[in-house]
Amino acid sequence: MTQFEPPRMGEPYLLTPGPLTTAYEVKEAMLRDWGSWDGDFRAMTASLRAQLLGLLGDAATEYDCVPLQGSGSYCVEAMLGSFVPKDGKVLVLANGAYGLRAAKTMDYLGRACHLLDKGDYLPPRGAEVAAILANDPAITHVLAIHCETSSGILNPVEEIAEATFAAGRKLLIDSMSAFGAVEIDVAKVPFQALVSSANKCIEGVPGFGFVLARKEEIAASKGNSHSLSLDIHAQWDYMEKSGQWRFTPPTHAVAAFLKALEMHAEEGGVKGRGARYTRNRDVMVAGMRALGFETLLEDRWLSPIIVTFFNPADPKFDFTRFYDLMKAQGFIIYPGKLTVVDSFRVGCIGRMDEHVMTRVVAAAKSALDTMGVASAAPPAAALEERKKLAA
Amino acid sequence: MTQFEPPRMGEPYLLTPGPLTTAYEVKEAMLRDWGSWDGDFRAMTASLRAQLLGLLGDAATEYDCVPLQGSGSYCVEAMLGSFVPKDGKVLVLANGAYGLRAAKTMDYLGRACHLLDKGDYLPPRGAEVAAILANDPAITHVLAIHCETSSGILNPVEEIAEATFAAGRKLLIDSMSAFGAVEIDVAKVPFQALVSSANKCIEGVPGFGFVLARKEEIAASKGNSHSLSLDIHAQWDYMEKSGQWRFTPPTHAVAAFLKALEMHAEEGGVKGRGARYTRNRDVMVAGMRALGFETLLEDRWLSPIIVTFFNPADPKFDFTRFYDLMKAQGFIIYPGKLTVVDSFRVGCIGRMDEHVMTRVVAAAKSALDTMGVASAAPPAAALEERKKLAA
Repeated sequence: MTQFEPPRMGEPYLLTPGPLTTAYEVKEAMLRDWGSWDGDFRAMTASLRAQLLGLLGDAATEYDCVPLQGSGSYCVEAMLGSFVPKDGKVLVLANGAYGLRAAKTMDYLGRACHLLDKGDYLPPRGAEVAAILANDPAITHVLAIHCETSSGILNPVEEIAEATFAAGRKLLIDSMSAFGAVEIDVAKVPFQALVSSANKCIEGVPGFGFVLARKEEIAASKGNSHSLSLDIHAQWDYMEKSGQWRFTPPTHAVAAFLKALEMHAEEGGVKGRGARYTRNRDVMVAGMRALGFETLLEDRWLSPIIVTFFNPADPKFDFTRFYDLMKAQGFIIYPGKLTVVDSFRVGCIGRMDEHVMTRVVAAAKSALDTMGVASAAPPAAALEERKKLAA
Repeated sequence: MTQFEPPRMGEPYLLTPGPLTTAYEVKEAMLRDWGSWDGDFRAMTASLRAQLLGLLGDAATEYDCVPLQGSGSYCVEAMLGSFVPKDGKVLVLANGAYGLRAAKTMDYLGRACHLLDKGDYLPPRGAEVAAILANDPAITHVLAIHCETSSGILNPVEEIAEATFAAGRKLLIDSMSAFGAVEIDVAKVPFQALVSSANKCIEGVPGFGFVLARKEEIAASKGNSHSLSLDIHAQWDYMEKSGQWRFTPPTHAVAAFLKALEMHAEEGGVKGRGARYTRNRDVMVAGMRALGFETLLEDRWLSPIIVTFFNPADPKFDFTRFYDLMKAQGFIIYPGKLTVVDSFRVGCIGRMDEHVMTRVVAAAKSALDTMGVASAAPPAAALEERKKLAA
């Protein structure tokens, strides 16, 4: 079993949905400067695009890859602005912050949007999508969030895709935190476009994201975008002609990403990466449950990306103190995003394995002991909340 | 006299307008991972904003600093979209690619724009600005490019500012490639907003830019932006409340920038940095002229950022070959952007001093010798072109 080298600069592990703990080799790739106009860097850009397309398997030839400067949310906005025509209408499937952000983006664009808001975590289901599409012929696109890291839920994209395509609409996927570790079968989910980011499951550093889109969709998107910077067609067109990014690329982050892609392939690609994250999650969740913690989601909805736990009912539990105690032991965890009950999140992605996750659980136990929290069991209200999902 | 360490990974010097050659220490700052939500990183963000404001001197208290993910052009678009109301109108002063890009951005925004296009390099003058503003009361804002790197000209922002404020309009400045090395006296140029980027004269790595804007201008900009990602008010508001960036920041580039800011201060701030770049330019231009090369611009218009040279008239001169020969000697130069005559550019910014520039000139001589170019003198047409500026 591989035991990865711990962070060499002594920094804490990042148990967050990204930026995450990356390999030292990935960061070392940033120790030189590249000219963005130079042929060496153009070759790096070409390699990056080809390798990302390769992750789609046999379907790769139908798609193209367009990297874009900025954070992942820039890519979501770029996808919506570039692929949804000005007279289009998007059904946004929201069950957390990222779905709501996509709906807000549509407000900025001034383009029509139907928001299905399922609250903090309940998954949008295929039947619901089918019903909405049947009732509203104006809807041209459906936007799904693959893994909604607000709760850590892995949304049912296959049934959403089925309902979307059965109704003759187009599917856009925000796969920010899932792409590269959660397999997406293009035969079953023949999306028009999908976005993800460098600093998620490929384990690069933040600075850019990328769009994987059907070639004909990109070609047809000219003139749609509301933004020069976020115009995917313009970025693609310039890249095709010149091999360069339109505007200054984050050269160091690109170099790091190429190293990260190499390591992703060495680990067995999406399958291998996903298997490690799944082990990370399983070991961590089992350990936390043994301490009395309860997950928001039942097992079938848990992603291998990040997991939400209810705060313990014990009044001696204080999240800020828990955070600090975890950090002092070398682990940065993440606050929760639920609106109804208090919670926190622990990520499973990044350069770490189950041995690290065992230490995370031990650190959590130590933190509880220090706070004098005897049981990590959540309040009854939290468990009531969870029953909603089973219903 | 300082002799900087050459690029430690053996890569060529980047004699370009950015990304540029950075100090190894700056890149070393990227060797650890940071959690973007964590207090340590929030402190880094606060320090970055305060240090950039500090570069404005006594005027700092009137302004605030908002860093923004993405390339410099994203920041220009964000500035235009956030500070120009939907019913506003911008006079864009263009003498090269960056001015034209700003005008194109206005097209995307669907907001009114008056483009003063001076061609490849002729500077927009105060009297012209005054005349246009007098004739068009609908114009609310003037956009000036501080250093237009298409030609390398340092535009006369003081007289532009004077004309703008005399007419009661607002001034926006794209100081991408100048800020941090070219002093801007806020008393004389009391701009509403100015944008620049991490990977220019502060000598950080690419990944984000920043806006320096009057506090009341930021506060009044709510609801203007066409883009969620590029909404400066929203970025500022969230950063003020939480200390965090709204979306995932390029954490490594931020860490590198803090090191770069430290080195900028050690060098004597804007004055010291500008003095080194000026020496770089003077040594390089003198040497190139001694080889027979001629600059596009007369000395009074030369910036200390990048210099355009005419291609030699000798038919044995071939730019691609010249580029490759320079690269083989460790120097990456930049192609020209003039539309009328052939040219190339040599940058003066980045982690290098005049000793390096002396070697650049020697490399150019060697490249000419290899190509069998006896004289680097430009064609007569090029010198005719230059007379336009004197006129």
